[in-house]
Amino acid sequence: MAQKPSIPKGTRDFSPVEMARRNYIFNTIREVFYLYGFQQIETPSMENLSTLMGKYGDEGDKLLFKIQNSGDYFKGLTDEELLSRNAPKLASKFCEKGLRYDLTVPFARFVVMHRDEIAFPFKRFQIQPVWRADRPQKGRYREFYQCDADVVGSDSLLNEVELIQMIDTVFQKFGVRVCIKMNNRKILSGLAEMIGQADKIVDITVAIDKLDKIGLDNVNAELAEKGIPQESIQKLQPVIMLSGSNEEKLATLKEVLAGTETGLKGIEECEYILNIVKAMGGTKNELELDLTLARGLNYYTGAIFEVKALDVEIGSISGGGRYDNLTGVFGMPGVSGVGISFGADRIYDVLNQLDLYPKEAVNSTKLLFVNFGEAEAAFSMKVMAQARQAGINAEVFPDNTKMKKQMAYANAKQIPFVAIVGESELQEQKLTLKNMTTGEQQLVTPEELVSAVKAC
Amino acid sequence: MAQKPSIPKGTRDFSPVEMARRNYIFNTIREVFYLYGFQQIETPSMENLSTLMGKYGDEGDKLLFKIQNSGDYFKGLTDEELLSRNAPKLASKFCEKGLRYDLTVPFARFVVMHRDEIAFPFKRFQIQPVWRADRPQKGRYREFYQCDADVVGSDSLLNEVELIQMIDTVFQKFGVRVCIKMNNRKILSGLAEMIGQADKIVDITVAIDKLDKIGLDNVNAELAEKGIPQESIQKLQPVIMLSGSNEEKLATLKEVLAGTETGLKGIEECEYILNIVKAMGGTKNELELDLTLARGLNYYTGAIFEVKALDVEIGSISGGGRYDNLTGVFGMPGVSGVGISFGADRIYDVLNQLDLYPKEAVNSTKLLFVNFGEAEAAFSMKVMAQARQAGINAEVFPDNTKMKKQMAYANAKQIPFVAIVGESELQEQKLTLKNMTTGEQQLVTPEELVSAVKAC
Repeated sequence: MAQKPSIPKGTRDFSPVEMARRNYIFNTIREVFYLYGFQQIETPSMENLSTLMGKYGDEGDKLLFKIQNSGDYFKGLTDEELLSRNAPKLASKFCEKGLRYDLTVPFARFVVMHRDEIAFPFKRFQIQPVWRADRPQKGRYREFYQCDADVVGSDSLLNEVELIQMIDTVFQKFGVRVCIKMNNRKILSGLAEMIGQADKIVDITVAIDKLDKIGLDNVNAELAEKGIPQESIQKLQPVIMLSGSNEEKLATLKEVLAGTETGLKGIEECEYILNIVKAMGGTKNELELDLTLARGLNYYTGAIFEVKALDVEIGSISGGGRYDNLTGVFGMPGVSGVGISFGADRIYDVLNQLDLYPKEAVNSTKLLFVNFGEAEAAFSMKVMAQARQAGINAEVFPDNTKMKKQMAYANAKQIPFVAIVGESELQEQKLTLKNMTTGEQQLVTPEELVSAVKAC
Repeated sequence: MAQKPSIPKGTRDFSPVEMARRNYIFNTIREVFYLYGFQQIETPSMENLSTLMGKYGDEGDKLLFKIQNSGDYFKGLTDEELLSRNAPKLASKFCEKGLRYDLTVPFARFVVMHRDEIAFPFKRFQIQPVWRADRPQKGRYREFYQCDADVVGSDSLLNEVELIQMIDTVFQKFGVRVCIKMNNRKILSGLAEMIGQADKIVDITVAIDKLDKIGLDNVNAELAEKGIPQESIQKLQPVIMLSGSNEEKLATLKEVLAGTETGLKGIEECEYILNIVKAMGGTKNELELDLTLARGLNYYTGAIFEVKALDVEIGSISGGGRYDNLTGVFGMPGVSGVGISFGADRIYDVLNQLDLYPKEAVNSTKLLFVNFGEAEAAFSMKVMAQARQAGINAEVFPDNTKMKKQMAYANAKQIPFVAIVGESELQEQKLTLKNMTTGEQQLVTPEELVSAVKAC
């Protein structure tokens, strides 16, 4: 019996138009990655669960898609275990493999497995889908692409500079105005240390982040609520009210953090990075020191980056930072790295909203030959071969059906040129070329047709 | 504790060099698909098991990778069912989703779901991985890419002509000499009908296929062994010994199959296709009518295609054909289609063996700036910005380490140009440009450097 087909919730089909736009995004990012000396790798969609489990916290373990073992997946399970119905515990008995949850853990695994073949510093990029068994909602999918670029095996802050420039270049190419925000984990640590609240970093940054929305008094109230003593809150005031240029912010921080070695180190790193970026001529997009940036706080150890679109209300569209122990969990300590991840789905939403796709990005058929019968089609196909030889994406309508249907096909596919060969054209060995945008028609020779379409 | 990481058997990591080569293959095929008017779609990696099960035979069902339901996957299962340990039967209780096994079934599902948005005839291509829980062996993987192009919603044989030309174009671009083999299911049906052995088509084609290896007597013996009566075998002799040009073969077949309507229809189709291809100027690669071609016999209803590489011993590297009921199983009858699938992994092996990758296909860094310290690096980075502006893939070595290590890095990444800025270069605001292929060095201005590298 016929089924009414559907796809799993949280997954998507991509139509030709959507694919053309997505390809434009991926190609643009990929080109910039190459321009900055990054090389592409790919890892398998499936990893051993032993590689994935425990890397994303308990919540992450639950969100892994697990693949049932082939053959007798009951093997090795006692009746007692089965009847316990302990789903989380037995998952690793039924399943040895899972779909990758991000590109970072597979990359760490890759670096360790291929350490002897890799020329360090390793500048790799990776554009692949990842899967998460999250509750699907608007803008959140169970299968989505990540575009990551990382440099591992180098401590140099020039890598941070390069990443900032690369982010700047990507969004210039897209024509999207963004603010590149930078913070440093060491400054946040210094801050918490300075007020004697090292364990409250997250609470502090979350509260400070609300200044614009709820005002100073409410921020201070929230800090008190989180158990931070009044004395510490008092010390934080210059940081909460931090404003001005990056230089002014750093000057204030230098005073506030004068007593903490870690904090001063963080300030020094920020200054170094900002100075070099400036010496290189600066960024086209805004580059802003933002102490409220705390993404991946447990993970990042130095610079933290985030990119916000200026003309569209949407969360962060890229983010990254410096980490110090990517591969330690796989037995290879001391590998420092810094990376950036571009959020392809959100960038897609931004480009859609701002309608920023270049016309030629929708890489489709440029020329359709209408089909009026065998002899006419045969002549058309010879001309079509010449057009393709000249690099023109071309097709002939395969069936000799009504003109109206064929023109509707050209419109649906947004084909800009249609070539018509009827009886009289065939006799003259010419074609009527119709410009679908202007409606203009002209009778041309095959050579004229090819050069006319080629020129547009 | 540190784990020693590994990847699931039958899966692969792709290194930067492998990725560059694979991208060259995919990009080449994609460009030709566009040239012929095909548009790309993508479908989710996971499909509902109800979409996949029963489409690939019992063996195929076993080879599906199934994804364990999230949360309490024991829900709805009785103790009795659990203790039955009936793995195949319970799979659909533990799992609602599976990884796609090919691109054809998801495509059929796509056509049915999006029928109202699609402009028919729908010329779609799809380049995505598929997964099969097959026993891994040399050249057979559990995750591999398929590259499919199909036209659905058109009966016209011009589609077959176009596919043949497209195959011809793809392998011309690769520089690989191939034989494009064509058969027609209707001829095979007519043949079996003619000798009164309609159910033995596969046995017959398999036996005929061995003529070159085992000789006529053994072929006839094998046919007899399969239960085909002597009288029928006698009738088959002209077909087994079929040789000569395509025209000669068709002439022989016309005589042999004179009494079967289906057979004659198949001959007519082949003649029509071959005639138009010829009228268009023929193919650069050999195009051969081959009656032993029987791939997907239960699936194809008209033309059958297969491509063999001429200079490498390897199985078929592409294949396809005409099918008449792609979407019937999903409740949309009468959709005819014809398609071709390029075997990316085998094409990769062929290009490797024949060493046919163009140099520029390995799209890597073209220019490395050696790092001799802060001031030198700052000057280098300014020049690097100019180089990138000119479209040159460039990078600076991020750490100020030994020259030897930096040059080793350039060699490992096969970077063709290295720019060196030491104290004296810095003073002159010039750079020493080293050609890593010839070993030549010259002192140049930033502008000279950019145009010298750009020109190569």
